[in-house]
Amino acid sequence: MARGILKKNRLNMNKSRKNTDFSLESYLKDKRNVINKALAEIVFQNNLSRQLISAMDYSLMAGGKRLRPVLCFASAECINGQGNALNEPVIIPACAIEMIHTYSLIHDDLPAMDDDDFRRGKLTLHKKFSEATAVLAGDALLTHAFYILSNPVIVCNKPIKNSILVELINIISNAAGTNGMVEGQMLDMQAEAVGNSNLKPEELLKYLKKMHGLKTGKMIQASIQAGAVTAGADKEQLSYLMDYAEKIGMAFQVIDDILDIEGDSSVLGKPVGSDELNCKLTFPRILGLKESKKYAEDLVSQALTEIKIFGEKAVALEKIAKYIIKRNH
Amino acid sequence: MARGILKKNRLNMNKSRKNTDFSLESYLKDKRNVINKALAEIVFQNNLSRQLISAMDYSLMAGGKRLRPVLCFASAECINGQGNALNEPVIIPACAIEMIHTYSLIHDDLPAMDDDDFRRGKLTLHKKFSEATAVLAGDALLTHAFYILSNPVIVCNKPIKNSILVELINIISNAAGTNGMVEGQMLDMQAEAVGNSNLKPEELLKYLKKMHGLKTGKMIQASIQAGAVTAGADKEQLSYLMDYAEKIGMAFQVIDDILDIEGDSSVLGKPVGSDELNCKLTFPRILGLKESKKYAEDLVSQALTEIKIFGEKAVALEKIAKYIIKRNH
Repeated sequence: MARGILKKNRLNMNKSRKNTDFSLESYLKDKRNVINKALAEIVFQNNLSRQLISAMDYSLMAGGKRLRPVLCFASAECINGQGNALNEPVIIPACAIEMIHTYSLIHDDLPAMDDDDFRRGKLTLHKKFSEATAVLAGDALLTHAFYILSNPVIVCNKPIKNSILVELINIISNAAGTNGMVEGQMLDMQAEAVGNSNLKPEELLKYLKKMHGLKTGKMIQASIQAGAVTAGADKEQLSYLMDYAEKIGMAFQVIDDILDIEGDSSVLGKPVGSDELNCKLTFPRILGLKESKKYAEDLVSQALTEIKIFGEKAVALEKIAKYIIKRNH
Repeated sequence: MARGILKKNRLNMNKSRKNTDFSLESYLKDKRNVINKALAEIVFQNNLSRQLISAMDYSLMAGGKRLRPVLCFASAECINGQGNALNEPVIIPACAIEMIHTYSLIHDDLPAMDDDDFRRGKLTLHKKFSEATAVLAGDALLTHAFYILSNPVIVCNKPIKNSILVELINIISNAAGTNGMVEGQMLDMQAEAVGNSNLKPEELLKYLKKMHGLKTGKMIQASIQAGAVTAGADKEQLSYLMDYAEKIGMAFQVIDDILDIEGDSSVLGKPVGSDELNCKLTFPRILGLKESKKYAEDLVSQALTEIKIFGEKAVALEKIAKYIIKRNH
């Protein structure tokens, strides 16, 4: 069935649904509680080495936004309705993706990489423990994500088909590796040199979009895709959700760059102005602040169009997209 | 069926087989060719970033012994006979395990860890490229191992059941992470302090065995287990093979320690005597050189007993076990 026809039919189908009152704040709180509980369960099942496990715990439980796992839940709800709680299969990719996100932050913060001393208002892992422990805790979190994906019974006793598990592992490993996040971080390491080169603004913008698309975008997309696949989405549904994900992933990065200029360091939990200080290649530097804001707003508005088809079921994804623009941390 | 009865029956079954002339040298050469071809195929399918990919390639194709993938093949052959070539399913865990082994060497060599400048007679990755590139290439190799395991068609167009793939991912992620290799490296980082403590020799030996059992042993066992599982082994067969793997894994480490004293640096591709120089906790230091050699020989002899049940099909595993004792690099 052509995407256009499908869209029309589904729009009609969902038209009659009432817009219930939905609080994003309590939605995020609920989901974060579920995710934190599952992550804690995963970590504390390991007692082999207190140093390795407590290092993993230190970073994993540092109180992040849990954006990726929340997106995983919200995406699943677009397919099978609300009510995805602790014991629902979607908790598996949600936890795995958050573990991979956490490992990437630990390795990115290393002295050989971004050399950051603070993260989420706390000392970075290599500052708190040691550089060796940080490398190993990152490696362990990445590896353990695939352990959870291949042994879901640890956090979810509902059965998940092997075909779904293999698909999830494929989606996530593809987004996290040489075709995604790691490649994006490589481009980020080279971005300063690119920024100081003689490239034209449109070429710089192309590089920046590619870098963010890989470094952050791919894992945001994987979160949405993994949630939908776990919930049994069909190809058309996936296509709309992936387009939504691409737009909000980029919008999220643009706003990140803007917050580094306009944000409040006490709310952000990290110093502001560091991008300019480090001559970083950012959207405001290429497009200007006003144009960057407009770009982010346009992306969010396009993202909202993509998910109209899901009607009331997409309420969480809708509110999250709007929140990305308004967020202050 | 009790293990003893099963063993007796199978021994009788295999008694009639003739011991063909088997050259370990040409066996290893053949398998290494197959493995190197598959690994090259995997790496060169990625063209996103020349720096990331060429760094992965530099370490992956540095000409290692390929012990783990060879064990994977040899173990599969115990179950389904010889003839496991490039397009056989066992190539999938074989490549994944070698990629994970390579990532672990890259990260272990980092300045924050063992700080090694040479590996296999070549500059270590962080010396050749940069520390950031070494961290990322390691991360990418680890991630890509799971990508291959969840997308086997890249190197093998024979179908592999999803249940087998999930089991392989579970075996490998368990052996490589907090329950295995990464934990072993943590213990290794703490070994110097343990070695200089007031612990009694038997306690030091216990620590050393635990450390090697996790750091090297688990992935050696995973290689054997993955090969056998891919070939459809039953529980009893797996049990014998896992016992074999445990023994040769430990023997391999004991010989490694001995080679650091008695080896030839030009053959080893790395300097000798570094363990003593770095006050490392080793088997010769606790047991003495003679007793360490005897320990390794006993382990190999026990390993050979475990695989008698497979008769002629275990010829490669038998020769590999004997080679571990005789090797000079």
